[in-house]
Amino acid sequence: MFGVTILGNNSAIPAFDRHPTAQVVTLNDQLFLFDCGEGTQMQFSAYKIRRSRINHIFISHLHGDHYFGLIGLITSFSLLSRTQDLHLYAPAGLEQILKLQLEAASTTLCYQLHFHPITSEGILVDEKKFSVECFATRHRIECWGFIVREKKKPRKINKDVINQYDIPAAFYDRLKEGEDYITKEGNIIRNEAVTVPSKAAKSYAFAADTVYFEEIADKVKGVTMLYHESTYLKDQVDRAADRFHSTTVQAAAIASKAGVEKLLLGHFSSKYEVLDEFLAEAKEIFSNTQLAIEGCTYRI
Amino acid sequence: MFGVTILGNNSAIPAFDRHPTAQVVTLNDQLFLFDCGEGTQMQFSAYKIRRSRINHIFISHLHGDHYFGLIGLITSFSLLSRTQDLHLYAPAGLEQILKLQLEAASTTLCYQLHFHPITSEGILVDEKKFSVECFATRHRIECWGFIVREKKKPRKINKDVINQYDIPAAFYDRLKEGEDYITKEGNIIRNEAVTVPSKAAKSYAFAADTVYFEEIADKVKGVTMLYHESTYLKDQVDRAADRFHSTTVQAAAIASKAGVEKLLLGHFSSKYEVLDEFLAEAKEIFSNTQLAIEGCTYRI
Repeated sequence: MFGVTILGNNSAIPAFDRHPTAQVVTLNDQLFLFDCGEGTQMQFSAYKIRRSRINHIFISHLHGDHYFGLIGLITSFSLLSRTQDLHLYAPAGLEQILKLQLEAASTTLCYQLHFHPITSEGILVDEKKFSVECFATRHRIECWGFIVREKKKPRKINKDVINQYDIPAAFYDRLKEGEDYITKEGNIIRNEAVTVPSKAAKSYAFAADTVYFEEIADKVKGVTMLYHESTYLKDQVDRAADRFHSTTVQAAAIASKAGVEKLLLGHFSSKYEVLDEFLAEAKEIFSNTQLAIEGCTYRI
Repeated sequence: MFGVTILGNNSAIPAFDRHPTAQVVTLNDQLFLFDCGEGTQMQFSAYKIRRSRINHIFISHLHGDHYFGLIGLITSFSLLSRTQDLHLYAPAGLEQILKLQLEAASTTLCYQLHFHPITSEGILVDEKKFSVECFATRHRIECWGFIVREKKKPRKINKDVINQYDIPAAFYDRLKEGEDYITKEGNIIRNEAVTVPSKAAKSYAFAADTVYFEEIADKVKGVTMLYHESTYLKDQVDRAADRFHSTTVQAAAIASKAGVEKLLLGHFSSKYEVLDEFLAEAKEIFSNTQLAIEGCTYRI
């Protein structure tokens, strides 16, 4: 399973029971949290997110609607006697904010919180089955997007044919990596004859808050699903630029230029109660678009 | 109207759709906010609280469940173009926490926020029709309770009898203050003959978080309604003491010693889903007890 669950899809001021930004990406047994607006820990309860599985949190920028729920989550983890380490990737200024709040409460967390300040584009997490990298967006203050990539998966042994060949089981791992097998007699058994490819590795890009910024299309090129903010409808293009935000059409243009498979729109302005026009406008440019709706999970 | 509306009645970890501490006291056209746990601004929307009427916020202490919603509220006020001054009374350490968060976002509030650090017991606000004072409770860190008092109201002119006397209208204000009127002939018209008393001035004490601390009974002596925390049922008396919290029976004992009219219990531990035993236990000691339930308003 590789999917994203939306916990908050609204811009700065909570409205119409929509919450500030927070998304949980599930990749098999791992959960990643992208941004953590006020109320995120309550959204975990509302949508039955297993918070104990979160070991990595990524904060795009230090506007409050993207992180004011973090200190509550961090302290609740401690009240719930968390033991695993927690890795937090965020702009450097966040460390002192958290530290002051913990000190004011005389709180010592009962688990290890590793703060990783983000300083430049590149890989943040590199594990066996996935990686997470960051890229700069263009916003009123320093802001980062993130890409989670599954790693290329090994090929699978084709069980229907493998027994027709005399290949020792000890060699199977090398078959999965794509090697051919050479028999004692010197005959080559081509890898493709005995394995099948696994599903393609997928990827998810969270483009955080950003004004229309064409370079993002290069940065997220070819990802499976792109989340791009769309604070406004297309007629608000000037207001969007003023406030370092994007419109429907701009988000769709980035998706199109980047050649992604699917586009997810969010960070809707509180001026809109009804959202269907967001979908209609974006689909004119990029048909495989969905709206990020709270409580819904989107398969990547 | 003098009443208190409960926005959060739970202790540290949000649970069972119960929220961390926040209460709005309404006194005629004024709203006072006591504590501001995470999600308070969403609770304002849920319960249609007119946030623009809040000019005074009081924070009891710097445990997160009593103030993590404050920075969100303060910045939303600015996004909503608030113009009136806002007065914030809190332990001194909060000022730097708010300052850092505003700086990290490059935010300048569009209204005046006056931070008043609480340093000792006494009057915090003294206006014509009400006052607010603070008193120390006993908790793991510095913690303050608050009392809102209506001021003694002027007497009312008794319209049924006033015309039987030859008293100039210019003297009516002095009649309302309780003075007798002396006629030109030197006759005394006793104030009680021409005025009636107004309703008694009422008062509300918010005793924040506290371990059982008998001195609180003196500090809140005779208030109309006392809110006292009751994190635990009576069988958890040792745990309550360890954690600087109180039980049902302890809260009721304080209410009884203080001779208050009504007791309101809150700050329930997340270990309890069902709350009716809180009421039953407290009522054995102090019969005029109610549970603080979110969304409910209690007349003081």
